[in-house]
Amino acid sequence: RDVQIGVVGAGAMGTEHIRLLSEQVPGARVTVVHDPDPARVALVRQRFPHVLPAPTSDELINAEAVDAIVIAAPDEDHESLVLRCLEAGKPVLCEKPLASDSAGCLRVVQREAELGRQLVRVGLMRRFDPVHRAVRDQLADGAVGEPVAMHCTHRVREVPAWFTGDMTFTNAAVHDIDVVRWILGTEIASVTVHSPSGPAVANAAFVDPQIVVFETLRGTVVTLELFLNARFGYQVTCEVVGTSGVVSTAQVASPVLLRQGRRSSGIDIGFQSRFASAYQAELTEWTRAVGGGDQPGGATAWDGYLVTVTAETCVRAAREATRVAIDAMERPALYDPRRDAQLDAV
Amino acid sequence: RDVQIGVVGAGAMGTEHIRLLSEQVPGARVTVVHDPDPARVALVRQRFPHVLPAPTSDELINAEAVDAIVIAAPDEDHESLVLRCLEAGKPVLCEKPLASDSAGCLRVVQREAELGRQLVRVGLMRRFDPVHRAVRDQLADGAVGEPVAMHCTHRVREVPAWFTGDMTFTNAAVHDIDVVRWILGTEIASVTVHSPSGPAVANAAFVDPQIVVFETLRGTVVTLELFLNARFGYQVTCEVVGTSGVVSTAQVASPVLLRQGRRSSGIDIGFQSRFASAYQAELTEWTRAVGGGDQPGGATAWDGYLVTVTAETCVRAAREATRVAIDAMERPALYDPRRDAQLDAV
Amino acid sequence: RDVQIGVVGAGAMGTEHIRLLSEQVPGARVTVVHDPDPARVALVRQRFPHVLPAPTSDELINAEAVDAIVIAAPDEDHESLVLRCLEAGKPVLCEKPLASDSAGCLRVVQREAELGRQLVRVGLMRRFDPVHRAVRDQLADGAVGEPVAMHCTHRVREVPAWFTGDMTFTNAAVHDIDVVRWILGTEIASVTVHSPSGPAVANAAFVDPQIVVFETLRGTVVTLELFLNARFGYQVTCEVVGTSGVVSTAQVASPVLLRQGRRSSGIDIGFQSRFASAYQAELTEWTRAVGGGDQPGGATAWDGYLVTVTAETCVRAAREATRVAIDAMERPALYDPRRDAQLDAV
Amino acid sequence: RDVQIGVVGAGAMGTEHIRLLSEQVPGARVTVVHDPDPARVALVRQRFPHVLPAPTSDELINAEAVDAIVIAAPDEDHESLVLRCLEAGKPVLCEKPLASDSAGCLRVVQREAELGRQLVRVGLMRRFDPVHRAVRDQLADGAVGEPVAMHCTHRVREVPAWFTGDMTFTNAAVHDIDVVRWILGTEIASVTVHSPSGPAVANAAFVDPQIVVFETLRGTVVTLELFLNARFGYQVTCEVVGTSGVVSTAQVASPVLLRQGRRSSGIDIGFQSRFASAYQAELTEWTRAVGGGDQPGGATAWDGYLVTVTAETCVRAAREATRVAIDAMERPALYDPRRDAQLDAV
Ligand SMILES: [Mg+2]
Ligand SMILES: [Mg+2]
Ligand SMILES: [Mg+2]
Ligand SMILES: [Mg+2]
Repeated sequence: RDVQIGVVGAGAMGTEHIRLLSEQVPGARVTVVHDPDPARVALVRQRFPHVLPAPTSDELINAEAVDAIVIAAPDEDHESLVLRCLEAGKPVLCEKPLASDSAGCLRVVQREAELGRQLVRVGLMRRFDPVHRAVRDQLADGAVGEPVAMHCTHRVREVPAWFTGDMTFTNAAVHDIDVVRWILGTEIASVTVHSPSGPAVANAAFVDPQIVVFETLRGTVVTLELFLNARFGYQVTCEVVGTSGVVSTAQVASPVLLRQGRRSSGIDIGFQSRFASAYQAELTEWTRAVGGGDQPGGATAWDGYLVTVTAETCVRAAREATRVAIDAMERPALYDPRRDAQLDAV
Repeated sequence: RDVQIGVVGAGAMGTEHIRLLSEQVPGARVTVVHDPDPARVALVRQRFPHVLPAPTSDELINAEAVDAIVIAAPDEDHESLVLRCLEAGKPVLCEKPLASDSAGCLRVVQREAELGRQLVRVGLMRRFDPVHRAVRDQLADGAVGEPVAMHCTHRVREVPAWFTGDMTFTNAAVHDIDVVRWILGTEIASVTVHSPSGPAVANAAFVDPQIVVFETLRGTVVTLELFLNARFGYQVTCEVVGTSGVVSTAQVASPVLLRQGRRSSGIDIGFQSRFASAYQAELTEWTRAVGGGDQPGGATAWDGYLVTVTAETCVRAAREATRVAIDAMERPALYDPRRDAQLDAV
Repeated sequence: RDVQIGVVGAGAMGTEHIRLLSEQVPGARVTVVHDPDPARVALVRQRFPHVLPAPTSDELINAEAVDAIVIAAPDEDHESLVLRCLEAGKPVLCEKPLASDSAGCLRVVQREAELGRQLVRVGLMRRFDPVHRAVRDQLADGAVGEPVAMHCTHRVREVPAWFTGDMTFTNAAVHDIDVVRWILGTEIASVTVHSPSGPAVANAAFVDPQIVVFETLRGTVVTLELFLNARFGYQVTCEVVGTSGVVSTAQVASPVLLRQGRRSSGIDIGFQSRFASAYQAELTEWTRAVGGGDQPGGATAWDGYLVTVTAETCVRAAREATRVAIDAMERPALYDPRRDAQLDAV
Repeated sequence: RDVQIGVVGAGAMGTEHIRLLSEQVPGARVTVVHDPDPARVALVRQRFPHVLPAPTSDELINAEAVDAIVIAAPDEDHESLVLRCLEAGKPVLCEKPLASDSAGCLRVVQREAELGRQLVRVGLMRRFDPVHRAVRDQLADGAVGEPVAMHCTHRVREVPAWFTGDMTFTNAAVHDIDVVRWILGTEIASVTVHSPSGPAVANAAFVDPQIVVFETLRGTVVTLELFLNARFGYQVTCEVVGTSGVVSTAQVASPVLLRQGRRSSGIDIGFQSRFASAYQAELTEWTRAVGGGDQPGGATAWDGYLVTVTAETCVRAAREATRVAIDAMERPALYDPRRDAQLDAV
């Protein structure tokens, strides 16, 4: 029997999840949708007539016809929605961030730990991107020896007017923080932020780009360039420097054109096209596992907590222009790494 | 309701199709399998217990629980199986080739044309490969002007001992022939084969590589290198030269390694890994269309007939070492190109 | 003491040679120039005041102050000029072609063979291009086994109005013919030309592109695309397919730009920029050898003869649309390959 | 008349400079060599018999037959040698570093400023590397807007046993420091060093790699990875992030091989092969300018002073694990940037 899924939030992200679950994820069936905006719900139901509307998120979460929940609501509602899924005892895949701040994330982690069962996954979808997985696999295979440094870039064409400087870290960098932890298999210990100044950034709404340097528990130094007004397109890369070689993410395949004096290939416009297959794989894995009673792969509530703690530390490090140590709670036993992950404890 | 699919043939290809349909194709359900070898059937049923065995292919084709059929049986059975699907009035996706020879393909085309309804699709899966589609899209968008030449390579690590020189064309080149027709949107008019000789190929079981030159109805010259003992890996490329630029297939994305004095990225081992996403997309599109009562995209019986006619012309051209014109039947009205395809008539 | 060089021809090519010899070639000194056009001579002497004018080419060739001659005069004068250098017993580097046609080339070869001393070098400068040399070296090192096929492209942005279809072969393809012989270390045995037709080439001054297929004495099949109105830029590539791998020319290094949705690097505008370092290396090697009394590397009169014979065979093969065997004289003993070259005899 | 050059130091570097000046630099003639080790001198004179030995460096510097001096002696002798060239009023090209420490560099700068004439150039040869020049040109052409960040890597296969951790900065990073200043056209204002720790670097002779972050006077943030035991080969890259795009150094051209399941190209073994053309161009430009009485391009004594000051600041920043501001003297008027350079004043 298909897994019956309720989706909270019918904005761009929620609608895209409904589309993927309906058209590209085997074994999934979106049964119920909720959004406070009836116009959005109507649009979804026009495209997917079999999806029923729920008047409230509570009714959706507790509906008989809902086995599991996808949350694509505004960030400030994530914590409350996830907590209610936990009370309902239903698996939930929550778009990042897990909560508005680390305190909220902590409340989710603590409640899940109390209940003693992992029900939460966080939509840190790069873990399902084939390009990133291949880098992690090469590292795990010993292709470049032990990691000693890592360089990441996260470049976005432009961000909306409501975007703030702090969101550079809490909204954008959380993906990179997760990738660093997941690829290196260890935790971030401290953060320094190097902010440019001067004429080139003088009139921007916030300081951009920002260069973050992480140091991990294993002593690896990681640089991360966050550039949210990069103009040229959307690009995410990482390069791991090892004791015997270097491995870096493949360029995404795109036809090569020879035109007008240049050899060129396309760059993505945004994360939607760049990570389309990651979203599909994430939902497919989650649906498969939920349907089979397994623990899905992907980021846990603990991961969601740690990426937000680290992002908040970046905010502080940027403000104070100094190295700041990560101060996180101890990891509850519920999140002890399975053998295939082997993360260091913070 | 899911499309109920019967699969004829439980060898490597048939089993892989069953796996894809079961795990990665939304809306598909493999209900019945047939293979004359009971051991193969047993293996399939071990992995996919809900799939029922059919004692004969006829019983499979005509089963109530089978809406549509996938054929992955030996090549010599394709024609007969497809014809029986036509009689049963059920959609069929037949692995290439459509029949053992062009006469067989012609019988299928004629029977389907008589029946007046397209039920057949041929597994020329490159049409669903994103890398090839992107080249076709660029050409259609006018990125390089009008095509004036095209260069293709098809390199295979090695072939089994039973592979013959003629199969270079009838087994391998059919994929390239289809790509040329599909990307250029016109038909191949003539074929020349340039065969190497001399010490390097003296001890091979058959002449390899072979260089084929096609000329199309629109006057474009196409080169194709077929190399079936290329050793280094599996590689398929194409490059279209236009009046204002050149477009070529992207390299498949693979992490970049710096190791031991070289910068490198991986090459596929075989068609299975290279075209994994193409197979999935092909089956997904076919399932979706069959389920919705639409005409699926992909190669028709007419395409299956033409690629085999062209491959047989290559065999003759290689033997006679001269240019040979393609001699094909007139295209039945059933296969008139839909607007989005706009192929020239032969 | 510096080698004193006279340059015949003060057009673009001659002037560039004078500049290179004056500024970038150690041990060279341009002492005399001749051109029938006094304006051109005046321009040269403005930039290089120490260069004396010679009223006639004969006076230049026979001048005391001229040890060796570079010929950059119109093609139709090459033969006569080279013959006079031979009579004067002075080393000569003649821009390709060696003569207006193969009969003229033959006269040069026969006279040089009579005189029994190699004095002629032909400006087939790709032999000095690091990118091409590296491919040849890899092949010689056995990196890809024995060569079984080769693919070349020669794409030019545009050609002047006086360019004719035959010149596709006699003017442009001579470089590629030389590269094929030099890299594969064997001779071309036959030629087929596949000419496009149809709307895309209907209004061109001549048929373009042309696809040439060579077969060598060792049985290797070589494809060559010649495209003289390629618009997008200037590009020369070759790829050698061997029994255990494939080696191809590096892309010329150019900074990578991420801009406006594309990742790109520059393509050369013309042969001058693409082969700037090849011209310099050619003149440097020639000056060094002439100064030291050695045989310079590079193409001999025999190479100059063979490339023109082969180009003329291409003209005939294009006209007759059939395979045509190369019909060349027997190689005089004077041109027996030195050990490092090991060409097969025709 | 050729420029007559004396070379002090006949080790690997000195001998290579003698070879380049003799074989590849027009207008240069090495007339005299000095090295305290007579065996080295003998080896040089075996290859270049016309080069006379000078018993002392003073005799070389003051020899009639020496117009200009190249210094490739041990680092600790640079200052004294350069100062004596200044006294002799002869142009000198000194391998980096200009002196053993910044105090020594300062003495050279002050003496040259007193004398009021630029005679010193420092062998920071990357300014003559076509790959780096092309990045600088693109930036100057506005191809990527205003620079806002920059990322550099400097990876060396291995270093000799006598190499110390401080030399990571004073010996290796001086090249990168110079490139950053020269490409960005501004000065470095402060330095932070992020040092890895933990098992991967535990047994190394010194901490490696080191990640340096520079902030420039214009507010640009620059990351630099220095990795001196990178094993895989020698690689130097830089990438400039601008307000409208990104430009990065081209990969050095190398033939592409398809072999054993991988597509690969070669990486340099060391700086000698990587920067061969840069050394040649540096010596050619210097010889040309010295011969013509011009100011040569390339790094001045002031540049030599600043790179060493900055490298020493890196040493301190690594030790103190904190951001350290560059504390340099005011630039003497003698080094006011010419219009084509337009560096900011420190
Ligand atoms: Mg996300
Ligand atoms: Mg197939
Ligand atoms: Mg030429
Ligand atoms: Mg140096």
